[in-house]
Amino acid sequence: MATKNTTRKEDYSKWYNELVYKADLAEHSDVRGCMVIKPYGYAIWERMKEELDRRFKETGHSNAYFPLFIPKSYLSKEASHVEGFAKECAVVTHYRLKNAEDGSGIVVDPTAKLPEELIVRPTSETIIWNSYKNWIQSYRDLPILINQWANVVRWEMRTRLFLRTAEFLWQEGHTAHATKQEAIEEAEKMLDVYAEFAETCMAMPVVKGIKTANERFAGAEETYCIEALMQDGKALQAGTSHFLGQNFAKAFDVKFADKEGKLAYVWATSWGVSTRLMGALIMTHSDDEGLVLPPVLAPIQVVGIPIHRTDAELDAIRGRFTELSKELRSKGISFKLDDDDKHRPGWKFAEYEVKGVPVRLAMGPRDLENGNIEVARRDTKTKEVVPFEGVGEYIASLLTEIQKSLYERALAFRIEHTTIVDDFEAFCEVVEKGGFAVAHWDGTEETEAKIKEQTQATIRCIPLNNSKESGRCILTGNPSEQRVLFAKAY
Amino acid sequence: MATKNTTRKEDYSKWYNELVYKADLAEHSDVRGCMVIKPYGYAIWERMKEELDRRFKETGHSNAYFPLFIPKSYLSKEASHVEGFAKECAVVTHYRLKNAEDGSGIVVDPTAKLPEELIVRPTSETIIWNSYKNWIQSYRDLPILINQWANVVRWEMRTRLFLRTAEFLWQEGHTAHATKQEAIEEAEKMLDVYAEFAETCMAMPVVKGIKTANERFAGAEETYCIEALMQDGKALQAGTSHFLGQNFAKAFDVKFADKEGKLAYVWATSWGVSTRLMGALIMTHSDDEGLVLPPVLAPIQVVGIPIHRTDAELDAIRGRFTELSKELRSKGISFKLDDDDKHRPGWKFAEYEVKGVPVRLAMGPRDLENGNIEVARRDTKTKEVVPFEGVGEYIASLLTEIQKSLYERALAFRIEHTTIVDDFEAFCEVVEKGGFAVAHWDGTEETEAKIKEQTQATIRCIPLNNSKESGRCILTGNPSEQRVLFAKAY
Repeated sequence: MATKNTTRKEDYSKWYNELVYKADLAEHSDVRGCMVIKPYGYAIWERMKEELDRRFKETGHSNAYFPLFIPKSYLSKEASHVEGFAKECAVVTHYRLKNAEDGSGIVVDPTAKLPEELIVRPTSETIIWNSYKNWIQSYRDLPILINQWANVVRWEMRTRLFLRTAEFLWQEGHTAHATKQEAIEEAEKMLDVYAEFAETCMAMPVVKGIKTANERFAGAEETYCIEALMQDGKALQAGTSHFLGQNFAKAFDVKFADKEGKLAYVWATSWGVSTRLMGALIMTHSDDEGLVLPPVLAPIQVVGIPIHRTDAELDAIRGRFTELSKELRSKGISFKLDDDDKHRPGWKFAEYEVKGVPVRLAMGPRDLENGNIEVARRDTKTKEVVPFEGVGEYIASLLTEIQKSLYERALAFRIEHTTIVDDFEAFCEVVEKGGFAVAHWDGTEETEAKIKEQTQATIRCIPLNNSKESGRCILTGNPSEQRVLFAKAY
Repeated sequence: MATKNTTRKEDYSKWYNELVYKADLAEHSDVRGCMVIKPYGYAIWERMKEELDRRFKETGHSNAYFPLFIPKSYLSKEASHVEGFAKECAVVTHYRLKNAEDGSGIVVDPTAKLPEELIVRPTSETIIWNSYKNWIQSYRDLPILINQWANVVRWEMRTRLFLRTAEFLWQEGHTAHATKQEAIEEAEKMLDVYAEFAETCMAMPVVKGIKTANERFAGAEETYCIEALMQDGKALQAGTSHFLGQNFAKAFDVKFADKEGKLAYVWATSWGVSTRLMGALIMTHSDDEGLVLPPVLAPIQVVGIPIHRTDAELDAIRGRFTELSKELRSKGISFKLDDDDKHRPGWKFAEYEVKGVPVRLAMGPRDLENGNIEVARRDTKTKEVVPFEGVGEYIASLLTEIQKSLYERALAFRIEHTTIVDDFEAFCEVVEKGGFAVAHWDGTEETEAKIKEQTQATIRCIPLNNSKESGRCILTGNPSEQRVLFAKAY
């Protein structure tokens, strides 16, 4: 707490790493690429899970659980899928350890070699479609609308807490449908769920769009995504929803009999968000003093700190806070009274600031005398003294106001950092400075690759409901029928 | 649904397996030893999780998340722990696959061999204490009260759905304390939480006790457990809570400075329950017709089935059910109206019976006319026609009554199958027939092992608050100071 924070301006990446540690959200473990999510960070993730899970259930989905391990051969069944996922993964080859004969410790028992290697799931399409094969015979068995909360492993060489780790937590929806139309509608519906969650709960504006062929999920026919803009002007893909066509049904031979008894392959979607959202949340709102949390996802929405000299004062202040606490709880607002005597009020102020608690209350003997209480907002760092009478109502509307204000601030930032560009020079300037460049592109993978090579910017998405507008590709000058969204990205 | 069920009497084990499949709870996957938990089974597990998680939080614990992988060397740091857990486990040796040079598919890339093998966690004491080492410096950092919901892998040769699978889901609490006394109190407190959960939510009576040295968790000083009796007379260990002493603190060198600045090793506990509880739940209450669920854990507490000939009748019945549905929801009771026209009422009756829905409502045109509704209890298979007016209240108290009655039935069964025995012949008879044998034992591991060898019965626990009573060991005749609980077990 004592060392000075790195500011966003000085070094954005260092600011982020420090913040994750100082706010006690997560840390690197000794296991390469794996993180430890600490209680405070996990509590935020739990709030995200609750909100998402409720939305999944409201849209008719159920949770289930499939094996952690995928037989190596399953990955090969869908051609593009194996290209995308078989590369960097954790491979289980043995199932037993034994004491070394030379007494040097435990070693892998060479006699316990698996006949077929198992892959720790990087995503579960293959193992799930291998089950769906047995679950689906007729149209009566459709649709299947299942979600799984799980850990997955993708062996990453360069890792960053929450943003890119070898093991991460996520949810993956896997649905099966009788018609193409229904599957596309499902993929789009779940994209809407993600976007609504991001904007309503995370207070993070997102652009809904589709990925170019190049950036599509390995095995998908269409990848829908939500893209957000971080404070350093880099984009972050916050969630994806895939229309998988009949690719996995064909790979695992999953057919159903329609009402006329005719056999056809099943249509599929999959969709997921992960602990990466924690990174997005942190980078969207936080400031140089620490984390800033939108009230909807804050594990502690309001903290109360007594400022007292005598025990009698503490008792009286505690009495008022206890009274208020009941009122706040009845309104569904989480409140923590920090009357711990191990630390002084100043230390606590700093602690809850760095942890991003939206509203901080303080009460001293004079407040007590005057019937007042001090209310401080984390987002604007403003504070005011208000009458204790009616402060419950006041806090409730303040939390709503903070949630709204965080969203508006982030939206204003994105609008300010979204630029329509018509030539390559302007394009380079925008993506270099940071932000979305809205530009014409000739629609070819070659051009996409060249732009990436020259500027590090990628096509984040082709926005949904994009207005058609003919123009010239910023790189090649070839004709283009619409603008797409470019940015450097996480 | 069509095939006749195997009865408990015919073949208990087959009855169990069939039930898990017929009630659509889980199935074996193609991955050896790993199960797929299907939506209905997972929904019950989610209810268990909710209830447990609330209790953990109410007793001051927070959730966190630690890596899936444990470096091989960590397991060796605590001598008895490695003996218990290093044997049968999944070992990750490589981190990349590649295309085979002969075009035959994908193979493990031999150049991507890990310098140190990683073990898929069979339990997380080692990886967690390796983190706690950095978290604990002073008494101010204690206690640490953390729980983790996670998947774990123990390579099992003979697996049974829920009861014994290579991968399973569980929670593991890991706490760190300044004093021995506090750690023991924590271990005992969490045992009480488990027992209260088992009895209140699962309607499953349990005996609280401690394990003999022989049956202790690998690395524990004391293992507390709750033991339940299944309908076939076999015991099932439903949860354990371990006082770990300073074993892991010493293994990972975790010391704290007390108020006087003196350094001392930290005291630890760990405690866990798993998806095994699903097996316990099924085997405690279910009957030859299928699953019987206690209302507290039932994903669907009440189902409503319309019995109609005409659409007009269906509309009218649906209207009444919708009305009732609102009332039930306001009372916190989950209700499903099954007006799906793909199946006939008879099929639905069978379906919800096998799935153990506690209360089934049916309404036909005559009921509508007379202002009645049919209410059927799953547990007693009784039904009655009652006035629709006031049925909401009636159902609420019926659910309470069912929960209580299931517990009492299970308790009566346990009492009936708990026998005090004083000689070896009677002992053999009791454990052979099934049930708890309460017998004197001379306290030695040798005798314990001999009894197991001769009868397959093990000491399930030494009950807490056991009354001291001198006697003679049933096997050796040597003096004994208390009776212990024996049974064959899952």
